[in-house]
Amino acid sequence: MSGPVYDRVALIGLGLIASSMFWAIRKAGLAREVVGTARSAETRETAREIGLCDRVTDTVAEAVEGADLVVLAVPVGAMGAVAEAMAPRLAPGATVTDVGSVKRAVVEAVGPHIPEGVHFIPGHPLAGTEHSGPRSGFATLFDNRWCLLVPEPGTEPEAVARLRALWEGMGAHVEEMDADHHDLVLAVTSHAPHLIAYTMVGVADDLRRVTDSEVIKYSAAGFRDFTRIAASDPTMWRDVFLTNKDATLEILGRFTEELFALQRAIRTGDGEMLHAYFTRTRAIRRGIIEAGQDTDAPDFGRVKTGA
Amino acid sequence: MSGPVYDRVALIGLGLIASSMFWAIRKAGLAREVVGTARSAETRETAREIGLCDRVTDTVAEAVEGADLVVLAVPVGAMGAVAEAMAPRLAPGATVTDVGSVKRAVVEAVGPHIPEGVHFIPGHPLAGTEHSGPRSGFATLFDNRWCLLVPEPGTEPEAVARLRALWEGMGAHVEEMDADHHDLVLAVTSHAPHLIAYTMVGVADDLRRVTDSEVIKYSAAGFRDFTRIAASDPTMWRDVFLTNKDATLEILGRFTEELFALQRAIRTGDGEMLHAYFTRTRAIRRGIIEAGQDTDAPDFGRVKTGA
Repeated sequence: MSGPVYDRVALIGLGLIASSMFWAIRKAGLAREVVGTARSAETRETAREIGLCDRVTDTVAEAVEGADLVVLAVPVGAMGAVAEAMAPRLAPGATVTDVGSVKRAVVEAVGPHIPEGVHFIPGHPLAGTEHSGPRSGFATLFDNRWCLLVPEPGTEPEAVARLRALWEGMGAHVEEMDADHHDLVLAVTSHAPHLIAYTMVGVADDLRRVTDSEVIKYSAAGFRDFTRIAASDPTMWRDVFLTNKDATLEILGRFTEELFALQRAIRTGDGEMLHAYFTRTRAIRRGIIEAGQDTDAPDFGRVKTGA
Repeated sequence: MSGPVYDRVALIGLGLIASSMFWAIRKAGLAREVVGTARSAETRETAREIGLCDRVTDTVAEAVEGADLVVLAVPVGAMGAVAEAMAPRLAPGATVTDVGSVKRAVVEAVGPHIPEGVHFIPGHPLAGTEHSGPRSGFATLFDNRWCLLVPEPGTEPEAVARLRALWEGMGAHVEEMDADHHDLVLAVTSHAPHLIAYTMVGVADDLRRVTDSEVIKYSAAGFRDFTRIAASDPTMWRDVFLTNKDATLEILGRFTEELFALQRAIRTGDGEMLHAYFTRTRAIRRGIIEAGQDTDAPDFGRVKTGA
């Protein structure tokens, strides 16, 4: 690396994403100092204990003091209040970004609190695991993943370039798009799949004639992939669905329509339709592997295939 | 191992499951000889080339000649015809089993062809990957996985015990249940999740406002787990849905009902309901990890977490 991109980075919220950012920033030397804070005393205690951040402050106001980059890494529903609390302490010329999974709602909740002379560049790293909390972060989380930035028109290009350099320094590829398109793309690639996985796991848990213990024992037949997705942080996901309501409901509507067509093919015994459908979906998987966004190893490499 | 469980095993169909069985049987010395055959000349050629099976025959009749275990490992829809073709050549006292993903339909299609004096014990190893074909097998596929046997009442216990010993020798745990319960359990743990994954991938492919290339690039946000499931063998899955129609449609009906309830919570902004639902589904994931049916490593261990 060619040295720090920012002088002082403030991480607000210390969950999976912020803690991974800290380890990645430290590893690549992307900031002179990283200050962190979290709402819960327990999280701050854990952070101090494991050396997460150079300095952990008790309040958001202290954390952002003198920072040239502030990263909002709290659930989307909490961002407006945090932005309001920190606004008076933001340094002129600083950049505020976030890592929330929806962007239009963040623009609307945070934008009005950003003072003149401070850059606001919402962002979203498409990376994560089903784990959460300050202990779940690791430096390579963003390696070869995408980070989407959604600057409003008129944002200073230098400020965007600097934030981009930070993400690239942490191993990510960066792309820019507008907030509404982001929310639609994510509804397809993330929000609808999560809701569907949550639903299927809920159904399995509810059935009387199949016990939970059977579901758990026999999950390797496909179900367990859903349970990983459905184990993600409940607060984060509640906020995602409440704040990306329209796009998620639109995609779920399309999904239901399509599911009904497939159910009908099953009911009427239309094997040709099913076979053609299943053949088409295989090609998408191939594209994802070729794009380097997943492994071709069977079962994601869960199994060792050496005979 | 304490020596061969069977003298000669005949594998009919040489895809992922049968080829894994061959490598597992050979590794553990569970049979003196394994004979294999497949409908397609190309598959038989590949098998001979890579040393899959001790002997590859061109016909089913030759393959089952003198075998004391015959394993039907063809798509469920093809099992009746294969059973009819081989029936006259089955040795008295032999056992016929299968590895199909549905069991009632196999009992009905294969059962009537089984001659007096031959044991018929349908089975289903809950193991697989998204890959298929004779080159996709490996010896450890069944390690710590479940194999369900569904013997009809009155089946000779010794014959069941012997088949159980074979599966245990290949590393699997064995459980017995009746065919209808099997089909319901699998509708929940496998068939409905697969149809749902196929559907979601189909929807993503269909949208005009989000390009395939965007879906592929940004798949790490959740979608890629669906694409792995939706990359499974189209013929096998067509047959599964056509032959486990009732249970699959029942579970899909429950799923749709539940999905509508969650959609309604999103539309009305019922955050409490969503949070409670997402919290409940997390517990199931924990159960699966504790039962040893998945890894706790983030993203199934796709990522290296050493900071």
